[in-house]
Amino acid sequence: MDLETLKSLVVKAETKIVLLVLDGLGGLPVESGGATALEAARTPNLDAAAAQGVTGLVDPVAPGITPGSGPGHLALFGYDPVEYRIGRGVLEALGIDFELTPADIAARGNFCTLDEVGRITDRRAGRISTEACAELSRLLDTIQVEGIEVFVRPVKEHRFVVVFRGDGLSDQLTESDPQRLGEAPLKIEAKVPEAERAAGLVNAFIEKARSLLREKHPANMILLRGLARHPNIPTFQELYQLRVAAIAVYPMYRGLGKLAGMEALATGPSVRDEFEVLRQHWQAYDFFYVHVKGTDTAGEDGNFPAKVAVIEEVDRELPTVLALHPDVLVVTGDHSTPAALKTHSWHPVPLLLSARWCRPDGVREFSERGCVQGGLGRLRGKEILPLALAHALHLVKFGA
Amino acid sequence: MDLETLKSLVVKAETKIVLLVLDGLGGLPVESGGATALEAARTPNLDAAAAQGVTGLVDPVAPGITPGSGPGHLALFGYDPVEYRIGRGVLEALGIDFELTPADIAARGNFCTLDEVGRITDRRAGRISTEACAELSRLLDTIQVEGIEVFVRPVKEHRFVVVFRGDGLSDQLTESDPQRLGEAPLKIEAKVPEAERAAGLVNAFIEKARSLLREKHPANMILLRGLARHPNIPTFQELYQLRVAAIAVYPMYRGLGKLAGMEALATGPSVRDEFEVLRQHWQAYDFFYVHVKGTDTAGEDGNFPAKVAVIEEVDRELPTVLALHPDVLVVTGDHSTPAALKTHSWHPVPLLLSARWCRPDGVREFSERGCVQGGLGRLRGKEILPLALAHALHLVKFGA
Repeated sequence: MDLETLKSLVVKAETKIVLLVLDGLGGLPVESGGATALEAARTPNLDAAAAQGVTGLVDPVAPGITPGSGPGHLALFGYDPVEYRIGRGVLEALGIDFELTPADIAARGNFCTLDEVGRITDRRAGRISTEACAELSRLLDTIQVEGIEVFVRPVKEHRFVVVFRGDGLSDQLTESDPQRLGEAPLKIEAKVPEAERAAGLVNAFIEKARSLLREKHPANMILLRGLARHPNIPTFQELYQLRVAAIAVYPMYRGLGKLAGMEALATGPSVRDEFEVLRQHWQAYDFFYVHVKGTDTAGEDGNFPAKVAVIEEVDRELPTVLALHPDVLVVTGDHSTPAALKTHSWHPVPLLLSARWCRPDGVREFSERGCVQGGLGRLRGKEILPLALAHALHLVKFGA
Repeated sequence: MDLETLKSLVVKAETKIVLLVLDGLGGLPVESGGATALEAARTPNLDAAAAQGVTGLVDPVAPGITPGSGPGHLALFGYDPVEYRIGRGVLEALGIDFELTPADIAARGNFCTLDEVGRITDRRAGRISTEACAELSRLLDTIQVEGIEVFVRPVKEHRFVVVFRGDGLSDQLTESDPQRLGEAPLKIEAKVPEAERAAGLVNAFIEKARSLLREKHPANMILLRGLARHPNIPTFQELYQLRVAAIAVYPMYRGLGKLAGMEALATGPSVRDEFEVLRQHWQAYDFFYVHVKGTDTAGEDGNFPAKVAVIEEVDRELPTVLALHPDVLVVTGDHSTPAALKTHSWHPVPLLLSARWCRPDGVREFSERGCVQGGLGRLRGKEILPLALAHALHLVKFGA
């Protein structure tokens, strides 16, 4: 159902929803016929919630499609991730907690190395240190381009973010990174006539950067990619009249929450810290998005036991959440990250929804194999939020 | 996901995919509570593949919709069968191995009988023999229409195909068959102004046919239906950079493969022949579509034991395919053809996907009832191809 129609069904309710996202939750057996990390983990509290609740499997974007963190989260927040796209530059800016405004174009930058005739010899400038990146970013941050503001912020090693702030800037721009060695950086070009002005301003910035970096070999030039505006996403307040909080350790996930209109709450780094923040702010919000990063990190590292350990940690701390008696508790992931693959994957993600008004399904274990049999069946990511709202009695009937 | 977005995710991979289509695979029990043909068949190899792999049920077009062979196959090839339509004339031309070009309009023709005042008395000309049809088609093939080429080819009994070849011919044309006795054949009319020229040319052909057939009672006139251009379908090469082969005994299925950009390989008539062709061409292609017709033929004949026998034949020969170690093996059908119904049906089709990176689901038997419990859940036909590509590591992640 489209968001406008969904919005027309929303009513107030004195209920509270917790969306607990275990990043990269879904997995694969390490050996044929073996258990996934979720299946191997001892999870008495999640299993009890599954037994009392209803389960299913989620394709965040579509069957076979491996989601990036951006699309995976937008889907969990109820948006169609193919319709609402987040540019690479915006995601990088969110990842360093840069407050983007609607007047901004953000770009992902690399420091790179040019030879004496201007051809790229290293697209990452020998992966300069994060400290060197910070120093060079401060230098570039002094650049003035007439008519707009420019912000340059370091990320890590050779990576930085540049934000161009000005009225009416179009982000319909090509990239300057040819993605190949032996070629010169490309000029930024306008994909549509309205973007000519923006292209000129960005190219002016790049030329000033070239001058400032001339003597800074190996970081004697920059490459810009993924130039994108802050996406204009209707917020949870506009759509659902909800007061929404995001509890996440990593800036990018707080940023994704902010895109949807969430307030980011400060938290310590552990799962216990995050759940404690949830407890402390329980009265102030209607909807809590809680993000646990460790499952994904362990999966990306190919560390099956570490992924099991994070899942068990979440299970151990879960009573803090359960003691608050959320009207709806959703536990799922933004995508799968099997340790066997060491990367995001296309496999569907286990989903658990526990609520006073859910219809139980006989599944007694929160696991990939259990969720195959779940009463929610096979869902798209964007379908979870309407289900959560329904179980929280936030939606009136559609049609008479 | 739309094909353009899917295309943007495609990367090269040194993997091989086999899509084995058992035409009309899905069935029904003959007696209440009995087994389907797939369930009744002894299929140790398919069952082992199901146990190692992951299963599900497919609605080729949508729940409740009975697919024709065209839409059923287009869906298996990853196209939305409601968006991409294959006109009746084109399907008939494919069925006789006529090489259509983008400049062609193809029509399904019937020889029919007119009375002395020009009213239709038999829409099928008494089902004249295939030999008579061939002779009359040769006669009509001599017709010249200024500015275009015309080809007339016999099909079977009263049926033939006519192809109009010329630049800029629109297929937005009505049909000449009123589908009722006692009426005169209709004039072909343009549905849009751009089709006026084509309508005039087709009507000129029909009038010349009328003259040539005047003394050929009962086949003294023709009726044309389903006038359609070669559909402009993006090919597997364009979309997925894959070298694709079609192995099919019947021309229509080879033709459907060719529409998607497949090379049709010559094969003998048996399943063993087809699998042997697969083996011989294993190095030359990345993706193989293998079509087995016997399951559908048996279903259409209402011959349950024959359908069981074809499935068992496929299972017996399957080790030839398995010995090639395809990275992804998909076994499914383009639709169901229950012997009990003697025709295509809307029932979902069993699906089996076996691959190194699939997530097993506990289903140990390739059967309709087994697939209900499958980890792939309930899919649309067009979702199978992205899944196959994903398991063959041909897709990068969507979004950052």
